[in-house]
Amino acid sequence: MTGGAMEPRGFTIPLTPSGQAAAAAGPPWYFGADVIQVEYHVAEESLLPFLPPGVELDPADPGLVQVAFSTMTAASAEIPSQHCTAPHDVNFNECLIKVRTRVGDAPGWFVTHSWVTNDVSLLRGFVQGFPKRIGKVAVTDFHSLLEQTGGRRPGARLGGVLEAPDGLRLRVLHACENEGSPDDVAALPFYLRRHFPALQPPYEGLVDEIVSPVVVEWQNLDVWAGRAEVETTGSSEAAVLVTPVDTPTSRSFRSTSTITGSQLVHRIRG
Amino acid sequence: MTGGAMEPRGFTIPLTPSGQAAAAAGPPWYFGADVIQVEYHVAEESLLPFLPPGVELDPADPGLVQVAFSTMTAASAEIPSQHCTAPHDVNFNECLIKVRTRVGDAPGWFVTHSWVTNDVSLLRGFVQGFPKRIGKVAVTDFHSLLEQTGGRRPGARLGGVLEAPDGLRLRVLHACENEGSPDDVAALPFYLRRHFPALQPPYEGLVDEIVSPVVVEWQNLDVWAGRAEVETTGSSEAAVLVTPVDTPTSRSFRSTSTITGSQLVHRIRG
Amino acid sequence: MTGGAMEPRGFTIPLTPSGQAAAAAGPPWYFGADVIQVEYHVAEESLLPFLPPGVELDPADPGLVQVAFSTMTAASAEIPSQHCTAPHDVNFNECLIKVRTRVGDAPGWFVTHSWVTNDVSLLRGFVQGFPKRIGKVAVTDFHSLLEQTGGRRPGARLGGVLEAPDGLRLRVLHACENEGSPDDVAALPFYLRRHFPALQPPYEGLVDEIVSPVVVEWQNLDVWAGRAEVETTGSSEAAVLVTPVDTPTSRSFRSTSTITGSQLVHRIRG
Amino acid sequence: MTGGAMEPRGFTIPLTPSGQAAAAAGPPWYFGADVIQVEYHVAEESLLPFLPPGVELDPADPGLVQVAFSTMTAASAEIPSQHCTAPHDVNFNECLIKVRTRVGDAPGWFVTHSWVTNDVSLLRGFVQGFPKRIGKVAVTDFHSLLEQTGGRRPGARLGGVLEAPDGLRLRVLHACENEGSPDDVAALPFYLRRHFPALQPPYEGLVDEIVSPVVVEWQNLDVWAGRAEVETTGSSEAAVLVTPVDTPTSRSFRSTSTITGSQLVHRIRG
Repeated sequence: MTGGAMEPRGFTIPLTPSGQAAAAAGPPWYFGADVIQVEYHVAEESLLPFLPPGVELDPADPGLVQVAFSTMTAASAEIPSQHCTAPHDVNFNECLIKVRTRVGDAPGWFVTHSWVTNDVSLLRGFVQGFPKRIGKVAVTDFHSLLEQTGGRRPGARLGGVLEAPDGLRLRVLHACENEGSPDDVAALPFYLRRHFPALQPPYEGLVDEIVSPVVVEWQNLDVWAGRAEVETTGSSEAAVLVTPVDTPTSRSFRSTSTITGSQLVHRIRG
Repeated sequence: MTGGAMEPRGFTIPLTPSGQAAAAAGPPWYFGADVIQVEYHVAEESLLPFLPPGVELDPADPGLVQVAFSTMTAASAEIPSQHCTAPHDVNFNECLIKVRTRVGDAPGWFVTHSWVTNDVSLLRGFVQGFPKRIGKVAVTDFHSLLEQTGGRRPGARLGGVLEAPDGLRLRVLHACENEGSPDDVAALPFYLRRHFPALQPPYEGLVDEIVSPVVVEWQNLDVWAGRAEVETTGSSEAAVLVTPVDTPTSRSFRSTSTITGSQLVHRIRG
Repeated sequence: MTGGAMEPRGFTIPLTPSGQAAAAAGPPWYFGADVIQVEYHVAEESLLPFLPPGVELDPADPGLVQVAFSTMTAASAEIPSQHCTAPHDVNFNECLIKVRTRVGDAPGWFVTHSWVTNDVSLLRGFVQGFPKRIGKVAVTDFHSLLEQTGGRRPGARLGGVLEAPDGLRLRVLHACENEGSPDDVAALPFYLRRHFPALQPPYEGLVDEIVSPVVVEWQNLDVWAGRAEVETTGSSEAAVLVTPVDTPTSRSFRSTSTITGSQLVHRIRG
Repeated sequence: MTGGAMEPRGFTIPLTPSGQAAAAAGPPWYFGADVIQVEYHVAEESLLPFLPPGVELDPADPGLVQVAFSTMTAASAEIPSQHCTAPHDVNFNECLIKVRTRVGDAPGWFVTHSWVTNDVSLLRGFVQGFPKRIGKVAVTDFHSLLEQTGGRRPGARLGGVLEAPDGLRLRVLHACENEGSPDDVAALPFYLRRHFPALQPPYEGLVDEIVSPVVVEWQNLDVWAGRAEVETTGSSEAAVLVTPVDTPTSRSFRSTSTITGSQLVHRIRG
């Protein structure tokens, strides 16, 4: 009456006979993204309380923040037909806040917050250290053929809207003014705090480490640049991160990447 | 203390000073769609009970049914910036069932059921006679650059998934096997039952008429054709409409159109 | 090949053989509600632009506004087992804004806005004249046994949160300070603008009338009264309606009612 | 420019200055539940592939399965006002499948699957070993005053409906036939597989252990018992767990509990 020779399998729970019930199936993960990226500065002292040990503001550009609204597709190599049999598990929207930092001498983007629209992304993110919650995230369609309903073309405006569970509401606008180059989209690594709590007091991180996703293929294309608007309402603690002190700029682009896992940067605990 | 010179305005309630709070803003409406369309036959006697007075099966092809899964954008001319300020009101998914019929000698598609993912589409449809409910509708992304997450290319497979509130679950697969022509996508009109109930017994239709949307611009492009799969589970009354008796075929295409209102076909009551 | 002897049936579209696919089944409708009701005044001139012809501010208490957050159940007599076979169609949350008005000499509450969490309520409301949209509406559970998770008892605080699609965010708090009497909950009728647009220019109301729901049984019970907080963020046109100029008060209570249809108050058009 | 003296805090990511942005705030957690619990047997060989190492079917009642549909409230002691300021984070619905097992000589319920309706519950569950996904879960309201919309009374029927992302649809009915005793609701512990994956090949569990939640207060009350129906559609791997081979029975009850953390039962890896 034991579990038998065939153990339940899966990258995350639930582990089941097929190994495919996991909320997040395992890497490699394939990502496609249509991204609106808004860039600006906030006061340095506002950012410091959000940084984990060993992660500093980048002296090359302290106070720099990016907010990205993306229409995403993401699938695991473990479920080859997922994009056509379960598109609700593959397609989602994302809003992500990242701060220009460095660890030692290596610059990168530390992700302070993220909101997504499905649970697959939430949990695939959680195990990597993306600090996600489910939120309402809407983004203008990049592929619309009618200017009245979306699309990117000279003069086009695109927007992203976030409603977070803590009351934060964020709205960005991006104007397609100039065609850009993929080189304009900085390819710095992400810094993430991968964290899994202990369940006995003091409930600290059993796993608590700064990691960086291992990206084996990453391509940006179809870049547009132009002016931006950022509007924040609500009294969230995160509001300071999306309240520019200078004039924001914006880019939009399409992106593909493959992530195979994570690389340890340094351990905080555990 | 009266409402004053400026009456509240709007195409639908709520009528407000700006006229822009309406759940559905007024026409003209601009539509963009990425469509997976599956076509098959069901037994004629299964279809008859779903047809309103004056709408018959088309003797040219009785029993023909189409199911369309679409990723949609739609906006009203009344709210010019809606696509960038409120993309959640513009972007939605749709699953639609239509039966080949005729009214008099004029062939057309009678829409028996539709499910959508936002309330703007629900109410804009309701006032036109699209018999919509909110459901879970997911569709493979047409624009993915990675074959693992979507996109259309030779050999690609795309899917649509519906979960309706009455328990109907529908899943279709479409294979991109042959490039097709826009002419393959039949441009017959829709027949819709526009219906608004009285609120006194016997609660019949105060407005109850067969109408056809007035489409002033309609373009189909980027057509692919290929084999299809249709899988239905659940015990819904609508299941008979999505249970083929022959081998289904499928097309995918992109579509744009503008609807300016409706044309009366015939009155049933009222 | 006609539709046959058995016509498709239903209170609203889709009309089908069973008559039970309608997004909104017909009356009588049975309602149960756990209500947090916040009451305050706003400037009279802010309210006037929201009032339809023939509906005036009540000179007995001009500027009076109520916001109600409710956890609702509602079912149609046409679908006797709906509460156990389709609880997702029966259970919903609602936020409703109403203004103290009169028509002729008869006082009542004119409903300017409402947000609900399912499509059955949206469409049942639409055909009655409740100006609803789908929104995020959350309300503290009245029945929790633990003070940490909800419930009403001396000193308890309850809350309601709305996130509307236009960016309005509303949060109310209600303190259970004093037990009240059902008589404290004013039983004035609702005034609603029942409105169904024409689909030819100028797209005015084909049906456009002030009606009042016919309530045949209405009972309020378990009343608590106490102080209130109202917090509004976002730049919605409706914000003025939820921005008190005095100190708000609040009540909570449970309510049951049956609505059998609507009574015409006066016609605006059509 | 370092993170400074005040480190970001939180039970789970995001860690922030307030410590209250965590998707799941830390224990103790207070739970209230209105539960419909359906009990039946399935073939033992169907269950074995779902059991992790060291967890066996209970020889005292092999093949016993319970499905529970619950309307839940849950809050963390770390966010004292959460029930009134963020009820959307506190209120959720749950469907849970558990198998009667033992570890050594100690009987308990191993949870194979769970579906919930908010992300707070999803992530609080994930770190404890509850194998949750977001799904559509609806449950009849226990507190309705009208028999047409819910409530428990002699002869009442209540239902639960699940739509899972993998296509599983589950519907249960519970009849209130006999009042029961709290002692009828077995108070066996949960067995959970707490699991956090490594992000290097072979991507096994870095944390992988059988744990049991530490419940310091647990009270069941208001018990009803009666016959049950279970209906399953869809082709999910989990369907075998909700397909009874005997006649199911059911109970409904209310429950409160407090969980302070987890107790290690045994380590599988890590």
